[in-house]
Amino acid sequence: MGKEISDETVGVVLGELTFDAQGLVPAIAQQHDTGEVLTLAWMNRDAIAETLKTGQTCYWSRSRKKLWRKGESSGQVQRLVEFRYDCDNDAVLLMVDQKGVACHTGRRTCFFRAVRGGKVETIAEVLVDPKTLYRS
Amino acid sequence: MGKEISDETVGVVLGELTFDAQGLVPAIAQQHDTGEVLTLAWMNRDAIAETLKTGQTCYWSRSRKKLWRKGESSGQVQRLVEFRYDCDNDAVLLMVDQKGVACHTGRRTCFFRAVRGGKVETIAEVLVDPKTLYRS
Repeated sequence: MGKEISDETVGVVLGELTFDAQGLVPAIAQQHDTGEVLTLAWMNRDAIAETLKTGQTCYWSRSRKKLWRKGESSGQVQRLVEFRYDCDNDAVLLMVDQKGVACHTGRRTCFFRAVRGGKVETIAEVLVDPKTLYRS
Repeated sequence: MGKEISDETVGVVLGELTFDAQGLVPAIAQQHDTGEVLTLAWMNRDAIAETLKTGQTCYWSRSRKKLWRKGESSGQVQRLVEFRYDCDNDAVLLMVDQKGVACHTGRRTCFFRAVRGGKVETIAEVLVDPKTLYRS
């Protein structure tokens, strides 16, 4: 991120953003140099503040109902390159540098199902065995 | 899209996707060749079926509570190049060819607010006067 983000700027961002009834906004993560869309996840206020302050993406896990520091168990972290949001202030775009693979299936991106040639296909290969990602 | 999408394939996609309590999934639109993320909008089953069948993106407008054929009033349509979805079947990525500007503010992308140099900045310029986009 270069210069550290001040509490004042974090406050400006949180003040401009609009959160849904669950206190969340959808957040797209995009690899900053290749443009590949990696994930769509959700952030609450705390996740946004932590992401801006630490420079590492932190989401809100809707299934586990807690902050989810991307890569905390798999090591596949996302370094924040730039934090952006949209005209309606209700969606976030995180330009990131993804280490390894973004998807829990071991693929680079979560968006690996596609309609091609009139049929649904899997268009990305598994690069890392998920068992090696989540061994404890 | 090349080959036309059959009702059977539309059924496979709708059968795999998981919709939220409002019957919606978030849909990212990305310019297929440059990789630029343009918009985050929402789709219901009808919007997805129409998008796949017509090859032009159709969303669900949460504010107007009706199908929203992107570009129907502004002319700034999105031609579908490829329909993708993610590992959890709850987010869509539309590879599109955007005509003109995607944002109602007249900017190419809706994601024009960014934290840069420690401050919030507007990073995309207005390319088309919104008044000319929506004159009736």
